[in-house]
Amino acid sequence: MATPEIEAQLAPLRIAVKEYGDLIRDLKEKGAPKIDIDKAVIELKARKKKLEDTEVALAPKEASFDRLKLEDLLKRRFFYDQSFSIYGGVTGLYDFGPMGCALKANMLQEWRKHFVLEEGMLEVDCTSLTPEPVLKASGHVDRFADWMVKDVKNGECFRADHLIKNAAEKIIADKKADEATKSALQDVLARLEGFDDKDMQDVITKFCFKSPATGNDLTPPIAFNLMFPSQIGPTGDFKAFLRPETAQGIFVNFKRLLEFNQGKLPFAAAQIGLGFRNEISPRQGLIRVREFTMCEIEHFVDPADKSFAKFKKVRTYPMVLFSACNQMDGQAAVSMTIGEAVEKGIVANETLGYYMARTHMYLVRVGVDPRRLRFRQHLGNEMAHYAQDCWDAEILTSYGWIECVGNADRSCYDLTQHSKATNTKLVAEKKLSEPRTVNVVEVVPNMAILGKEFKKDAKRIQIALAQMSEECIESLERQINTGAFKLKVDNDEFSLTSNMLAVKRSTKTVHVEEIIPSVIEPSFGIGRIMYAVLEHSFRQREGDEQRTFLALRPLVAPIKCSVLPISANERLNPIIEAVREELNRYELSHRVDDSAGSIGRRYARTDEIGIPFGVTVDFESEIEPWTVTVRHAESMEQIRVDLSELGSLVSALSSERMDWDTAKRMYPIFEAKSD
Amino acid sequence: MATPEIEAQLAPLRIAVKEYGDLIRDLKEKGAPKIDIDKAVIELKARKKKLEDTEVALAPKEASFDRLKLEDLLKRRFFYDQSFSIYGGVTGLYDFGPMGCALKANMLQEWRKHFVLEEGMLEVDCTSLTPEPVLKASGHVDRFADWMVKDVKNGECFRADHLIKNAAEKIIADKKADEATKSALQDVLARLEGFDDKDMQDVITKFCFKSPATGNDLTPPIAFNLMFPSQIGPTGDFKAFLRPETAQGIFVNFKRLLEFNQGKLPFAAAQIGLGFRNEISPRQGLIRVREFTMCEIEHFVDPADKSFAKFKKVRTYPMVLFSACNQMDGQAAVSMTIGEAVEKGIVANETLGYYMARTHMYLVRVGVDPRRLRFRQHLGNEMAHYAQDCWDAEILTSYGWIECVGNADRSCYDLTQHSKATNTKLVAEKKLSEPRTVNVVEVVPNMAILGKEFKKDAKRIQIALAQMSEECIESLERQINTGAFKLKVDNDEFSLTSNMLAVKRSTKTVHVEEIIPSVIEPSFGIGRIMYAVLEHSFRQREGDEQRTFLALRPLVAPIKCSVLPISANERLNPIIEAVREELNRYELSHRVDDSAGSIGRRYARTDEIGIPFGVTVDFESEIEPWTVTVRHAESMEQIRVDLSELGSLVSALSSERMDWDTAKRMYPIFEAKSD
Repeated sequence: MATPEIEAQLAPLRIAVKEYGDLIRDLKEKGAPKIDIDKAVIELKARKKKLEDTEVALAPKEASFDRLKLEDLLKRRFFYDQSFSIYGGVTGLYDFGPMGCALKANMLQEWRKHFVLEEGMLEVDCTSLTPEPVLKASGHVDRFADWMVKDVKNGECFRADHLIKNAAEKIIADKKADEATKSALQDVLARLEGFDDKDMQDVITKFCFKSPATGNDLTPPIAFNLMFPSQIGPTGDFKAFLRPETAQGIFVNFKRLLEFNQGKLPFAAAQIGLGFRNEISPRQGLIRVREFTMCEIEHFVDPADKSFAKFKKVRTYPMVLFSACNQMDGQAAVSMTIGEAVEKGIVANETLGYYMARTHMYLVRVGVDPRRLRFRQHLGNEMAHYAQDCWDAEILTSYGWIECVGNADRSCYDLTQHSKATNTKLVAEKKLSEPRTVNVVEVVPNMAILGKEFKKDAKRIQIALAQMSEECIESLERQINTGAFKLKVDNDEFSLTSNMLAVKRSTKTVHVEEIIPSVIEPSFGIGRIMYAVLEHSFRQREGDEQRTFLALRPLVAPIKCSVLPISANERLNPIIEAVREELNRYELSHRVDDSAGSIGRRYARTDEIGIPFGVTVDFESEIEPWTVTVRHAESMEQIRVDLSELGSLVSALSSERMDWDTAKRMYPIFEAKSD
Repeated sequence: MATPEIEAQLAPLRIAVKEYGDLIRDLKEKGAPKIDIDKAVIELKARKKKLEDTEVALAPKEASFDRLKLEDLLKRRFFYDQSFSIYGGVTGLYDFGPMGCALKANMLQEWRKHFVLEEGMLEVDCTSLTPEPVLKASGHVDRFADWMVKDVKNGECFRADHLIKNAAEKIIADKKADEATKSALQDVLARLEGFDDKDMQDVITKFCFKSPATGNDLTPPIAFNLMFPSQIGPTGDFKAFLRPETAQGIFVNFKRLLEFNQGKLPFAAAQIGLGFRNEISPRQGLIRVREFTMCEIEHFVDPADKSFAKFKKVRTYPMVLFSACNQMDGQAAVSMTIGEAVEKGIVANETLGYYMARTHMYLVRVGVDPRRLRFRQHLGNEMAHYAQDCWDAEILTSYGWIECVGNADRSCYDLTQHSKATNTKLVAEKKLSEPRTVNVVEVVPNMAILGKEFKKDAKRIQIALAQMSEECIESLERQINTGAFKLKVDNDEFSLTSNMLAVKRSTKTVHVEEIIPSVIEPSFGIGRIMYAVLEHSFRQREGDEQRTFLALRPLVAPIKCSVLPISANERLNPIIEAVREELNRYELSHRVDDSAGSIGRRYARTDEIGIPFGVTVDFESEIEPWTVTVRHAESMEQIRVDLSELGSLVSALSSERMDWDTAKRMYPIFEAKSD
């Protein structure tokens, strides 16, 4: 995508990346020690980062985008703003005002149509409050954490990597600092993403980093869990968290959902809802927040067959893919059809590929610029250990490439974890191609004796016996014939003797086998996508830089249509009223601006909040049958339309069933006197 | 609404209520001590409760409604179910499955259309996490609590009123208990709602109530705050709660919203979002839960003018009102138009009346039976001290009359509280009918001297001086002329001398005055409304009691249409595919059931989940042009329709632009062979 001139500048950087990509492949092939590979990966990432930073820096900028101007507009017209600001505000919490709220609602509505309705997904709505054991099983209690350092005296907390980054950048920018230190710190910055607690501690010690405001010493990095803690009920001993993702609610309902789907695989469940992450020190506006709306899909599929019937519908869909292989080779992302990507094994399977293509379509549909959208594959060491393949939809913004949607093949990890934690089978039945005869070994307890001996524990013993593997039963058989068998149930131990049970062997014919489904998970961060859409929609009028506006897609625009009388003359009121009724009949959100400003100023005000169409009532409107002009905000072109056709026209334009060019061919162009 | 026979039985109970209603009015008029009035109110409520219980008991039951059967259906078809049940479940938390989730989404969508779009409300979306000072100002930290008693030995917790109710009911049901005790306890039950902690403690002591499972003694009632606590950020000292209502998010954004509305009153803001209440021991399914979706409106209006332009549109709308006066007189609720109610002063103002009527329309529109819907006015002592008038929309369910929507005139309480807590003006400007000249007294600080003397505190002093009232300034003037003036700012005191400031007097002409708007708040509990809708929609087929179904309004039904091939013959597949495409073109949610069961059994299965229309493809469908039958689930009637007209017909029926009777007149009736 880059020009030859840019490509020439990037070439040495690409070679530098490839050198380490090759080295890592070589080390892996030789079975080199993990520590050597890990070291090489850190260097690879450092080189990749340098390449990417240079790429972004050299790319032609979108016509002088000015983030401060956009932020000013968003704040001033209350798209969103910091929560509780009259109380001093809370970092990482944002309230959406009327415009942001409607934009978000429209994006969610479109998501529901595009995914849930189109694919017949089972949408669920689970609680945010989640008991501790659920998140223990999912791994979040133990592993969902960031490294934090504290000021040893006043206890102020810092995210360790942020502190290092800020301190390093300050020194690098300092003219008096010596070059050797600067170069060492530049190296640190490039590698920082891959650092663990020990690496960070080393950097802090080596460069004598201190608490920024006080100059006090810092504690070593400690893990800070990012979940918000709470308790359910009055006793204080029912620990719970606010969910960090909506996915777990789907997994714990797997049995009900499978049953709802009449026991059949594959099926997909979806959830739109809040997620909460107690970030240590959130920055970057909507990109990193503490409470956010997510849309997640969990597609359950036979691990042995991840083909997808509707894949043929997207096979020829082109998208920009940045494979792990390309990343290791220092290559640029490449455009190819998703069909080709799956065929070549670049994308693991059809189901994952289908969702990647559908995700791409959704993002473009709500207003992401496809030229600033790519799908980046996780490198082996970036993926969760259980994931089989993972592609992030990344959108280029003024903050760099931002991960907005994750598409992961999570294999059977989650269901297995919850199944273990609850002793519940979370499986689907798969019909065997032909019936099979299997040997069955089971323990038949003598409940009368067990009950007498162990009272209320007898039930627990029965359950534990029923769950024993064939191997365990054989071991039990050996031990019990020569004395007693010690059965452990949770933390208790029970001594069983041969009179209490019998081991029964039999054969049976089975027609189905039980499988734990694999899960393909597309996970959308709506706030991040919304921010990217706002950046990509932000425009300045040619020749008038102060006049900024949002060219939002009509489909998601908060208000579809403005209604502007050309003058305050009361004669126009009945026509205004008729326009409103016509728009209401088609359920079109609109806003009347009958304030004093000139028509041009009022247009500017409506353009600014992304209203795609404007209806103006002028004195020509009075000639029967009544007509009005319809203005297309992005192009500022206008057409003249009969009032009786207004609703159906604006409805077609707003839902994007019709585009503006078509409308222009259908109605006479109106040349405005001033704009 | 009751028959003369029933009314005869109720008459003495009505007289008993009125006796106390009259007594209370009399006491108030005489200015009797509060304690006497309070006592009389408890007795009034006890008598009211007896009257209402008898009324409900005598009312003709909806054709043998069986809650267990409904609950079985809702659980089996996963409308909703207890959250985390594979982990043992959590009381008061529910997950919505595909059917419940879609029903809820449709109800919310309808709410948004009916209120937000129709009235041009400013919808916002604020965070659930709320810092402590916000909820301190709103009064929730201090007063949002229930009384709780604890087992003194094992610490088990009980909601005090629930414990008393259960213990009392057990004794009343006990054949061996003596009649005097039973009668005393019946009296307790009737009065329980009005009890404070001392009253409950007296009952527990008098009747020797113990911890139910252990028989241990109980602690005296202690206040348990119902908000879920958490902390924001890593230090642990930024206390926060999950919001107990969405309203506060609107109040703290008042300034931004007023500005968005170009400074004009009245305007309404709305919010759809989660609320959280840490109930001590929730029961009653969706009626009392710990996490729930609310829809709230805050309508800001000039306290001196609560008229409402669109009130004329609802003036003749009839609704059942149960005024405070009727309640005190032991009268039944009466049906009247909202216009009449406002005119007679029964409902306080047009704005409140308008929202009550619109609330009534919404509830009926989503499926609440209007015969089981009333608006009950709060008695004086039920209202929050700041509320001016309050009417609850109550829906009759098998749990009795349930409050589902509150409509309150909260006056300027909330804005005043947040304004005080933050030193921020939360006011609107109101144009004076004619300009007015006012005297202005202000303190002009000498910042140079203040800065030198007080350093960084100078700014705080400046702010405090600017906020002084006329009275305070005069006092300052007197003191400072004879020495020093001690200025208190928060917890600090500063000694000011006359060289540091000047008192300036002037006059100015003002054209506007600042007013703190009143707030009218309709607040909807969507889960409760949904439960009521499900109860009111539950039906049994005549002559086949086992065949239950949900006659949901098409507008809110989770799935609009089922698609059933009459046989598994593959010849029908192309027609099925064409039906799906036709329905998709109109964005109609549908479900194909091509499973093995008979057509009658499949109809029953789709009726059960409230699918209002069914499309059957039979062998007659093959005759060109293709036709299908459309079945109306509630009546089981069928018509035959050209495939090309199917989408527009089902769309019209689903959105209720057309009713079934009209459809029957437009298309030939089809007599099914079996059903």
